[in-house]
Amino acid sequence: MSNTRQLLARRAKLLGAKAPLFYDQPLHIVRGEGVWLVDVDGRRYLDAYNNVPLVGHCHPEVVEALARQAGTLNIHTRYLHETILDYGERLVAKFDDSLSMILFVCTGSEANDQALRIARCHTGKQGIVCTNLTYHGNTTAVDAVSPLFYGANAPPHPEVRTIPFPDSYRAPHGLAGEALTTHYIAALENAIASLEESGVGFAGLLLCTIFANEGLPDVPPGFMQRALDVVHKAGGLLIGDEVQAGFGRTGHMWGHEAMGVVPDIVTLGKPMGNGHPLAAVVARADLVEEFRERVFYFNTFGGNPVSCAVGAKVLDILERDKLMDNAREVGAHLRQGLHALAARHDIIGDIRGQGLWVGVELVTDRNTRQPAAEQAHRAINLMKDRGVLMGRIGEFDNVLKMRPPLPIAREHADLLLAALDEVLAAL
Amino acid sequence: MSNTRQLLARRAKLLGAKAPLFYDQPLHIVRGEGVWLVDVDGRRYLDAYNNVPLVGHCHPEVVEALARQAGTLNIHTRYLHETILDYGERLVAKFDDSLSMILFVCTGSEANDQALRIARCHTGKQGIVCTNLTYHGNTTAVDAVSPLFYGANAPPHPEVRTIPFPDSYRAPHGLAGEALTTHYIAALENAIASLEESGVGFAGLLLCTIFANEGLPDVPPGFMQRALDVVHKAGGLLIGDEVQAGFGRTGHMWGHEAMGVVPDIVTLGKPMGNGHPLAAVVARADLVEEFRERVFYFNTFGGNPVSCAVGAKVLDILERDKLMDNAREVGAHLRQGLHALAARHDIIGDIRGQGLWVGVELVTDRNTRQPAAEQAHRAINLMKDRGVLMGRIGEFDNVLKMRPPLPIAREHADLLLAALDEVLAAL
Repeated sequence: MSNTRQLLARRAKLLGAKAPLFYDQPLHIVRGEGVWLVDVDGRRYLDAYNNVPLVGHCHPEVVEALARQAGTLNIHTRYLHETILDYGERLVAKFDDSLSMILFVCTGSEANDQALRIARCHTGKQGIVCTNLTYHGNTTAVDAVSPLFYGANAPPHPEVRTIPFPDSYRAPHGLAGEALTTHYIAALENAIASLEESGVGFAGLLLCTIFANEGLPDVPPGFMQRALDVVHKAGGLLIGDEVQAGFGRTGHMWGHEAMGVVPDIVTLGKPMGNGHPLAAVVARADLVEEFRERVFYFNTFGGNPVSCAVGAKVLDILERDKLMDNAREVGAHLRQGLHALAARHDIIGDIRGQGLWVGVELVTDRNTRQPAAEQAHRAINLMKDRGVLMGRIGEFDNVLKMRPPLPIAREHADLLLAALDEVLAAL
Repeated sequence: MSNTRQLLARRAKLLGAKAPLFYDQPLHIVRGEGVWLVDVDGRRYLDAYNNVPLVGHCHPEVVEALARQAGTLNIHTRYLHETILDYGERLVAKFDDSLSMILFVCTGSEANDQALRIARCHTGKQGIVCTNLTYHGNTTAVDAVSPLFYGANAPPHPEVRTIPFPDSYRAPHGLAGEALTTHYIAALENAIASLEESGVGFAGLLLCTIFANEGLPDVPPGFMQRALDVVHKAGGLLIGDEVQAGFGRTGHMWGHEAMGVVPDIVTLGKPMGNGHPLAAVVARADLVEEFRERVFYFNTFGGNPVSCAVGAKVLDILERDKLMDNAREVGAHLRQGLHALAARHDIIGDIRGQGLWVGVELVTDRNTRQPAAEQAHRAINLMKDRGVLMGRIGEFDNVLKMRPPLPIAREHADLLLAALDEVLAAL
């Protein structure tokens, strides 16, 4: 085995010096199993970071389904095959009846890109509203609605308006409740008006339904329903990005269920194939029919039988093993433990999220809510040293991000809590 | 098993009535093996259409590599893993030394989208030139440079100029040789000038290196080298789309080798993972470093160990089984047989392509070269009835398109030729 320094040198030469890596001392991972990742030295890490391996790393039944179908047939969708129909019908049945058609793609970026195309095709307008701290993917069009990583170099995107993400923790002007909702809705109305005035017009609002990259804020009451009303009144569509929120992690199948709205278009990705490149757009039938009528859309790999067999097996396991229940139960246990830690560690300013999507905001002062970004940076590196993987996110990079594979058990959560207790004490 | 009519009804409801399908009577395929596809009634079809299963449908060694790695580790590239480095280094070594860095993605559309981003990042300009009959993929940005399917509804794309594809068979004004090349190069120069004059500026020329969707034209002498010179002189980049041309099918590893040029950026897809969603951008190191420096680029599934293990196994088989040699040899045998058919069937107007990328242009009159599109349509349906799958392509949809899995043998080519002889006689 090469050592880490050699790997880093090879990596910089092949992928670029700035290709992103986690941790001050990067991890060299060689094996995954359930909620565990194993490094080259045989050290095991509790994976509380990766949302993609939804039913656990290298789940043997998923691997078996993958291998069986890959050894039987792997072909595009211009021949008939039943796998795509069986899986697609089963998947759309998990949505509101209005969301009845599906477009298969391979990545969340592709899903969001096609969702933008569908919304623009339907409305005949180009303008998209998104939040000021979101990330929806990496294609040219989706990058334009992903300001999270722009920094100071934000390019001009005349077809995009950003609005402040709805945040109850650092609410502006000391607003709360309905007044806070009205504040954020006014920003949406202004953004739409600005697009209309500029001549670009308004096609839709694209939101992660749990605002994952924004740091899992507690959304002020009624925000999503009022936003949906404003969007529809302006002739636009609501695109619900479920790439991070979907497939049961929140304890709901979809993030928009918890928000009490039904988007016009939903995008799916990351956990859908447990790591296999599988993603989709689920949308109102009239929107998909119209898009198909006016645009030739084909995706060579999208909806192939192997991807669909994998997706179906992920649903099998999710249902049979009651992983949504587990997300609620272990999520609640984890949250309870985090609140106990908060009683001892003043650095914990807020605990947010649902199910096994957890955000812990670190602050240097609970009154001023001054972000503790440097401490969050140290915390995730110290957690790694103690064998637990997590990330950080949010406007100030001070929110610890936890989203383990759904089969995580209470005892795993206890390991995480014990390690975090030590780490917060040592900060 | 459902019958075809039921499947079609389910498909229309789930995917849309206009979701594309092949053949007047669609095929319901249930199994693939080597160069064969098998339908629900057990009927075997010689697959002379599908370029994605490069080393053969459901190759057992590819399936084994897929399953082994999927059962060991499947993770993103923000942890170190060796599979990506081993595969990526091996792959870039197959290019000119100047093309030394790689960005992993999942589809050819993603590859071309990132290639556009890299070219625009480097030049600071937005303008792209492509041919009038090309298709490079389905993202918003790539769709703009894919006029093949626009028809009469071509939307305005101020950042795109199209040029006539270089065609020796239907050359304008009776031009030939260097004079024809000069004609096409002048169109490129005009397109670049138009972009510059409009204020958009010129970022690059995006070309499929074998002009596959354009119908595999015989390119007039020196066109690619002169185009490259014009592009560089104008401060732009040449993006060589190898999604269809690459990985040995032409008898060269890359289409641009046969054209005698080295692009600045190359995109890879379709056959790269033998059906697994694996694609990439290979480019000059300075371009990738600059892109990485200025843009946060990450792809959740791109470059995961499973995809890289599959890609490496495809290269193993391609090399060990000398499939490029086979592409040359069986391709020559097939072409020889097609020329023999042309001696008996006046409808064959032209036979083009390289290796196992073959185009047979059908015309109603060899002098006027009137396209025989309706006959081409009937021909591919009749070939299917005789158990051989092929497609059609080109400006008039009158070019029979053949691109079988590379392990095709002479006796398979003979089957195809015998069936085509009958079909052309019956048209």
